[in-house]
Amino acid sequence: MAGLVSFFNPKSVAIIGASKAAGKIGNVIVKNMISSGYTGPIFPINPKEQEIEGLACYPAVDKTPMPAELAVLSLPASRTLDAAQQCGISGVKNLVVITAGFKETGKEGLELERRLVETCRKYEMRMTGPNCVGLIDTHTPINASFAAGFPLKGEIAFISQSGAMVLSILDWSYRAGLGFSKFVSLGNKADLTESHFIEDAGQDPNTKVILCYIEDVENGAHFLEAARTASRKKPVIILKSGTSQAGAQAASSHTGALAGSDLAYETAFRQCGVIRARSMAELFDLAVAFASQPVPSGGRVAVVTNSGGPGIIAADTIEQKKLQMARFTQETIEQLRGNLPRESNIYNPVDVLGDAKADRFRFSLDKALSDPGVDSALVLVCPTAVTEPVETARALVEMRAAHPEKPLLAAYMGGEKLAEGVKVLEEAKIPCFTFPEPAVSSISGLTGYARTRELPANEQDLSYECSNLKNVKAILYDVRKDKRLVLLGSEAAEVVEAYGIPAAPTTLAASPGEAAESAGRLGYPVVLKIASPEILHKSDVGGVLIGLDSPERVRAGFLEIMNNVHRYLPNAAVYGVEVQKMMPKGTELIIGMSKDIQFGPLIAFGLGGIYVNLLKDVSFRLASGLNRGEIENMLAETKAYTLLRGYRGEKPADIEAIIGIIGRVARLVTDFPEITEMDINPVFAYNQGACALDVKITVS
Amino acid sequence: MAGLVSFFNPKSVAIIGASKAAGKIGNVIVKNMISSGYTGPIFPINPKEQEIEGLACYPAVDKTPMPAELAVLSLPASRTLDAAQQCGISGVKNLVVITAGFKETGKEGLELERRLVETCRKYEMRMTGPNCVGLIDTHTPINASFAAGFPLKGEIAFISQSGAMVLSILDWSYRAGLGFSKFVSLGNKADLTESHFIEDAGQDPNTKVILCYIEDVENGAHFLEAARTASRKKPVIILKSGTSQAGAQAASSHTGALAGSDLAYETAFRQCGVIRARSMAELFDLAVAFASQPVPSGGRVAVVTNSGGPGIIAADTIEQKKLQMARFTQETIEQLRGNLPRESNIYNPVDVLGDAKADRFRFSLDKALSDPGVDSALVLVCPTAVTEPVETARALVEMRAAHPEKPLLAAYMGGEKLAEGVKVLEEAKIPCFTFPEPAVSSISGLTGYARTRELPANEQDLSYECSNLKNVKAILYDVRKDKRLVLLGSEAAEVVEAYGIPAAPTTLAASPGEAAESAGRLGYPVVLKIASPEILHKSDVGGVLIGLDSPERVRAGFLEIMNNVHRYLPNAAVYGVEVQKMMPKGTELIIGMSKDIQFGPLIAFGLGGIYVNLLKDVSFRLASGLNRGEIENMLAETKAYTLLRGYRGEKPADIEAIIGIIGRVARLVTDFPEITEMDINPVFAYNQGACALDVKITVS
Repeated sequence: MAGLVSFFNPKSVAIIGASKAAGKIGNVIVKNMISSGYTGPIFPINPKEQEIEGLACYPAVDKTPMPAELAVLSLPASRTLDAAQQCGISGVKNLVVITAGFKETGKEGLELERRLVETCRKYEMRMTGPNCVGLIDTHTPINASFAAGFPLKGEIAFISQSGAMVLSILDWSYRAGLGFSKFVSLGNKADLTESHFIEDAGQDPNTKVILCYIEDVENGAHFLEAARTASRKKPVIILKSGTSQAGAQAASSHTGALAGSDLAYETAFRQCGVIRARSMAELFDLAVAFASQPVPSGGRVAVVTNSGGPGIIAADTIEQKKLQMARFTQETIEQLRGNLPRESNIYNPVDVLGDAKADRFRFSLDKALSDPGVDSALVLVCPTAVTEPVETARALVEMRAAHPEKPLLAAYMGGEKLAEGVKVLEEAKIPCFTFPEPAVSSISGLTGYARTRELPANEQDLSYECSNLKNVKAILYDVRKDKRLVLLGSEAAEVVEAYGIPAAPTTLAASPGEAAESAGRLGYPVVLKIASPEILHKSDVGGVLIGLDSPERVRAGFLEIMNNVHRYLPNAAVYGVEVQKMMPKGTELIIGMSKDIQFGPLIAFGLGGIYVNLLKDVSFRLASGLNRGEIENMLAETKAYTLLRGYRGEKPADIEAIIGIIGRVARLVTDFPEITEMDINPVFAYNQGACALDVKITVS
Repeated sequence: MAGLVSFFNPKSVAIIGASKAAGKIGNVIVKNMISSGYTGPIFPINPKEQEIEGLACYPAVDKTPMPAELAVLSLPASRTLDAAQQCGISGVKNLVVITAGFKETGKEGLELERRLVETCRKYEMRMTGPNCVGLIDTHTPINASFAAGFPLKGEIAFISQSGAMVLSILDWSYRAGLGFSKFVSLGNKADLTESHFIEDAGQDPNTKVILCYIEDVENGAHFLEAARTASRKKPVIILKSGTSQAGAQAASSHTGALAGSDLAYETAFRQCGVIRARSMAELFDLAVAFASQPVPSGGRVAVVTNSGGPGIIAADTIEQKKLQMARFTQETIEQLRGNLPRESNIYNPVDVLGDAKADRFRFSLDKALSDPGVDSALVLVCPTAVTEPVETARALVEMRAAHPEKPLLAAYMGGEKLAEGVKVLEEAKIPCFTFPEPAVSSISGLTGYARTRELPANEQDLSYECSNLKNVKAILYDVRKDKRLVLLGSEAAEVVEAYGIPAAPTTLAASPGEAAESAGRLGYPVVLKIASPEILHKSDVGGVLIGLDSPERVRAGFLEIMNNVHRYLPNAAVYGVEVQKMMPKGTELIIGMSKDIQFGPLIAFGLGGIYVNLLKDVSFRLASGLNRGEIENMLAETKAYTLLRGYRGEKPADIEAIIGIIGRVARLVTDFPEITEMDINPVFAYNQGACALDVKITVS
């Protein structure tokens, strides 16, 4: 798609369901279009009216003097389908369907929505909604919505799955002095989704920051692509709700959204560079910071304060947010020492003392911002008897201009006494908070984005390929033919070996003689395991014997296992016994895959063995776009990594071998999407190499 | 101490260092005292003036017409000592020392402060400060501070280690409409500390909520006692800074405070019922909630909203904060179904839809608050075209009155359109936020306090006693005589056994013959370990042999260990070899103790073995006031507990035995404060009983 420019800047707009009655949505939209200053022709459509709000009214969309490029539909759901069809016939390009009464109301509504989309497809129209508040662009300008008001002009695009939130934020934004480039209410996302609008906002020259509120993602692959591309150009900040079980239930009773698991969203956001806001306040704090401040080159923060306590609170928050308190150069320290009173703290946080006037703030801030060891600065002002709130604010404005490459934020801790100073900062677009903590949070968001921008583009730079694709296909063919969902251990081992993952040699034996023969070939000692897709917990039914070191013991073992299993599970389908070479013990890891409904395969890595579920030392990445750097991060997030690097004097494990297995698993599950679940537990990691001991693969 | 009533309600007040010069602190205090409405006599003291601000001025504190009960000192640090002495001689009871230039400035200041305290002690005076802003009580009323203004009258006491924060919060509080009973600026805490003022506020009938900002605690035991007592009567909410390394450094460069570790503070706060605020915003949000709302009987929250999105956000936050979305009774559901539009969500969160007027909010809220399954309610209002912000607010006020036992909070999500409604809520003392998340946080704080109030009083209900105190004393005597800091394994085992902790029988043997004899007595097989206080890692020097099963092997083993150790560490002091009965393997736990500088022994429990430091599955409690319930909580916080209860079909371990060991360790380290560190790692937990395998005890 070339973009949604014609949605936000159409040549002409029809309002179907336009009304003369004040307060009716069909009237509010006409008024909004007029008052927005939109310069193209506006065609109210209503067969019963001649004129609405001073504009000529037309009986139908095909009766307008020129075709409408955009049609805004606000009529009962039952009449929407016909109206859309008329639009299609008369050459309308884009629809904004305000009308509710579709998917969100149940089965009938869902069917109506499906037919609405069909109509759009038929006439090659694109649609926003249904069940939405509409669209606003302050730069066109256009207000194709029933929101009560028009936002201040600015550089933030706000895309929201909740219409009411659009209304809330619009009303709130006046007080906060926050300007927007666009407002988009997504509604039911029947055609256009968050991904389309993120793409569009990414390309929009008037948009500097992309803000989203979403409850789910409509198409995982599209979202990843859109967010990845946009976030390299400008920050994409998302508040995703429905993270809790309770929230997900509320979400489904709301728009019928099937929420993917939060883990997958968390991973997806991280991998495509989205900044995740944890609260509504943080969403907008970050928007303000990004709209006004440069992205710092690192996380070293200088704090200048006229009071010790708030300085300590800032330092605490800086550490919590994984930023660093900047260490000044000797030169900076000398200059501060030479020019501040003796009792001042000249190290970071710089305490200019309660009797500081604006000059001390200006001087200290200038020195801090000039220091090469400082990436951003935070100023804390408490209202003492001599504080000069306005002069100090002006000093900040001056310093912001003198050091344009470093973010500057402030906390003016008080009320009336500081209000005038706060106004000065707001006008100069220096983010100002009442307390230090959210200011530090905002710096943390800015800093995180510096890393995002440098993320490599989506290159699957893992060149792991299958050396024997035919073999894998043949195995999966047999499994399907047998109507099985689970591969035998020997099959699974073959599959991973085809991808270059070293597995303990495993052979399926149908008789005691075959077992002994296999064991001889593999080399003693061996492990015997019952081979049955129906038996998950093999040990529990006497289906495993270890350390068998002679042909005799293997033959006897085969019979013993068969007897045990027949006794416990007389009806289980048994394929024989698997003979596996017994491997030396290594560090036990788990490498696995589960599938997310939106984002596809999710690769897991962590401490393996029987305590996997207890210790939960596991990190995750989407297979989509997984690259070497991400695999390394994935390892580093776990405690297992500490073990692998050589804990308490043990030899380090072969990290390369592990990275290889993770990459190969990602490749395997991408090549074969019918694999729905996979577990290698344990993988033994050795000083040289690694080995998959037990491979479970489930297919659909 | 009987209380600080005479500090906040003195019969007469002298201001030493009173000044005529506007803007000078000595002048501001006089003006503040007058304008506060204080009804007792005020005596400005200044030898150079006859009159200040219309009050007769006296040349010295002993020249006033009647003795001053409280003296506020604001003169140079160098003259403070003399002034304090004069106060003492002339019968002043209490001092508020505003003057800075003491401990916070270095060594000389510290000495001056020490002498100031000495003077107070000599004349039995109590002192707040030095280096503080002063005290305010709105109920007396009195303003013995240089703060610019007088707080609104209310029921919140704010005790702050940061003077500037007092000024900030005072200025900010007007805008927030927040009233206070007291403001206390602690300053350097040379005499009176946070603990004294928490005690006082706990007894103050005008104080309903105690708020503190502290950077450290002056006296751990006093704090625990004061906070424990006060928090059972009213909520004690503390923001403790200096939690980070950076923050702690900033703290020590600020007031020279030696910050205890944050873990100890966290544990102390929890054990004495303090509600810990995580940010300044949360501190005051909680204050507002507690000052205006009842404590709910549980965590089941009902949400009523006119928009789905914010409802989901609220539900997410409710789960994150470990509250529950209330489940309505069938009756409530039927009533909602019968009276709300068909499209409404009648389950929790109740979505009354965007076109809801006040009546739908009122009806739904009434039904929700009447439901026995609901403990508190949150109302979310977005500004749609038909929303009635003021009417809706009035409905909330009505419902608050109709259901006085259940907290009611609101988020009015918008700006100007909702402002009048917000005002109505503020006046009615219904906490109102812009976004849902902090409202849920506040409900979480209220709910947590319900549990605190029910905490048992500080009874050391653990009746574990030492059966052989003489033996323990004798061992510790020998250790001290030897000038050792570490007990031998056999000594440590004897010590814990004296407290009823089962330890693997261990004997010290000086010769091969003695070793064999001991082994015969203990029973085979045995473990031999080198006995030397200088050797920490015994295995590394060949100092451990396991599984020795005959007298011959024990004799040979003795010699082998001695040889190994002599080879590796020819100069180590060796006491012989310890013979320990080899115990069957159990679940490996660690039970230990480390000492906090403020709060004393901190008991640790968790997964033991060599991965202790990797897995960090350890929970902590202060030995002070540790009771059975707390030990149970301590177990339940760990993953080890999952293992102990019988993981993956294993038999459960003897939880009683483990509780016993933890309680006995707490008793031991309380009885013998010279024990500075202790580790039992591993403790083997069995299906029946438990056994200490390796006990390390360090003394000072």
